[in-house]
Amino acid sequence: MSSSSTAQQPSPQLFFQTINSHQRTEALKAAIELEVFTAIGEGNTAASAIANRCQSAERGVRILCDYLTIMGMLTKNGNEYALTLDSATFLDKRSPAYLGGAIEFLCSPELLEGSKHMTEAVRKGGTAIENDGTVGPDNPIWVKFARGMAPMMMMPSQMMAKLVDPTPDRKLKILDIAAGHGLFGIAFAQNNPQAEIHAVDWKAVLEVAKENARKAGVADRHHTIEGSAFDVDFGTGYDLVLITNFLHHFDPPTNETLLRKVHAALADGGRVATLEFVPNDDRVTPPDSAGFSMMMLVGTPSGDAYTFAELERMFANAGFSRSTIHPLPPTIQQVVISEK
Amino acid sequence: MSSSSTAQQPSPQLFFQTINSHQRTEALKAAIELEVFTAIGEGNTAASAIANRCQSAERGVRILCDYLTIMGMLTKNGNEYALTLDSATFLDKRSPAYLGGAIEFLCSPELLEGSKHMTEAVRKGGTAIENDGTVGPDNPIWVKFARGMAPMMMMPSQMMAKLVDPTPDRKLKILDIAAGHGLFGIAFAQNNPQAEIHAVDWKAVLEVAKENARKAGVADRHHTIEGSAFDVDFGTGYDLVLITNFLHHFDPPTNETLLRKVHAALADGGRVATLEFVPNDDRVTPPDSAGFSMMMLVGTPSGDAYTFAELERMFANAGFSRSTIHPLPPTIQQVVISEK
Repeated sequence: MSSSSTAQQPSPQLFFQTINSHQRTEALKAAIELEVFTAIGEGNTAASAIANRCQSAERGVRILCDYLTIMGMLTKNGNEYALTLDSATFLDKRSPAYLGGAIEFLCSPELLEGSKHMTEAVRKGGTAIENDGTVGPDNPIWVKFARGMAPMMMMPSQMMAKLVDPTPDRKLKILDIAAGHGLFGIAFAQNNPQAEIHAVDWKAVLEVAKENARKAGVADRHHTIEGSAFDVDFGTGYDLVLITNFLHHFDPPTNETLLRKVHAALADGGRVATLEFVPNDDRVTPPDSAGFSMMMLVGTPSGDAYTFAELERMFANAGFSRSTIHPLPPTIQQVVISEK
Repeated sequence: MSSSSTAQQPSPQLFFQTINSHQRTEALKAAIELEVFTAIGEGNTAASAIANRCQSAERGVRILCDYLTIMGMLTKNGNEYALTLDSATFLDKRSPAYLGGAIEFLCSPELLEGSKHMTEAVRKGGTAIENDGTVGPDNPIWVKFARGMAPMMMMPSQMMAKLVDPTPDRKLKILDIAAGHGLFGIAFAQNNPQAEIHAVDWKAVLEVAKENARKAGVADRHHTIEGSAFDVDFGTGYDLVLITNFLHHFDPPTNETLLRKVHAALADGGRVATLEFVPNDDRVTPPDSAGFSMMMLVGTPSGDAYTFAELERMFANAGFSRSTIHPLPPTIQQVVISEK
């Protein structure tokens, strides 16, 4: 037994790696909080120099940077650490694509709390957190979302605007449902000078969207509708409705109720553009989209990552004539365009 | 930008996967707690049947099993789940090699607490948990360790006994330092009917070792010495001293102090057999051994996963003449044998 180790032999390695995975979250969070990636990007490559820049112990930095190297977020050559293409782009604070602020949302106590009660959520079939987890009214998590996730959505929002409105030469009245940071509507407004945005979200969240609309120079074409998308009056005559990262929080009947309301708000020939994590029918590929279901299990009463067939059915049941799916590379998300 | 996604293009995918890694720990823990692997091993392959067996919601089980499939701990064919070789061997309660109990230690609040304060630990260069983290006197975590980790150490302990005492035809007086569950000493006693074991650990921990010695039928050759290995009187005349998963908790000077004491307790020609996670000199390979340093950073004041060169130096400084390193496949650990 000790003389040969073959691929056929069972190994506890995956068990051990997986049960300790929580350390990966903490290591990335610690590195962002201590600005380790920024320090390395600035030219501090030895543990001692990084420690000095990050006001940390050299021993702590050495062990953290080795761990980040093992995780593929740094490289190591001798005793010198360097950023990878990904970490230079997304984790160095000086990069315009810096995503580090996303930990304020992704590692918020509210979000982690759901994950900590996973066993109970599996038993129950939905979040074990009271007040419907993250989808309860006016949950402050959505302000953290709007502030923390905006940088992560900058590129996808611009790509989505170009995909959905490729020849921006006509007026567009756009409803931006659960706008959050507002970036999706704002990107459409930047892409098309004749686009008028009506953003729906909780009042406190819309403050963030308004701020972003001002910064983007489109505040005069950015209007807001305060409240739940299920309750507020959308108005009518929309050419386009954006539903970005929203349907996954609810079950199909709830989504169909919303989609019927959206259908009624659309002008003839109007369209809905939905951004979602869309797993294949097997529900286990691609891994990141399929795995997103778990976040919905622990954080919502009945949300899910829906397959295209499921999304298509919800839109059809709500009266839409046709839905098509479009990848949005290099993001892992997809855009579903549904026609009235 | 949207038309081509090449390997050269930065992607936030690794960031997103890594920051959500805590879900992997929770998913494996939930599956063990709900006995999902056992349920599947018993022949429940559809989510509905597994849910019934595990008294859980079908929706919760479906999302959990998909997630376990994504992590490589199950396979999925149509709507039927199956165990992998690893999960059948280590996670089905009916398997003699069942390891699920290890979560009582690996996911204990004491151990997770260290990980949660990683940023502070990096700043400080050692655990941010008071009373020296896990290595404080009589920390109850070591009873959890002794109970939870014994199954995981069954195979390595037997392999180590055969490696170190391959022709068990002579009397051996063995000192088993920080014996924990006692399995290492016990395996030597089972391997060699003339071996007498003297196990050192905290009193409460030794109760677990004694229980295991009784179960293994070697209680008459299993003696105990209660207290800290740094303080107690070992006695003298040992042929072999076992130091398993212990040196990584301390810094080199502390280890050298212990090793000098061990040297004095050994008979002439005596040996020490040390079991450790031994990274290569680059400290980032192999990943699991190298990554173990992080657990020591967050859980101890100054522990580490030591390279062979570092271990060799500690033994040499303590008076040992020669150290050699031996792999223990399929485990990821190594055995260092040091001669007086």
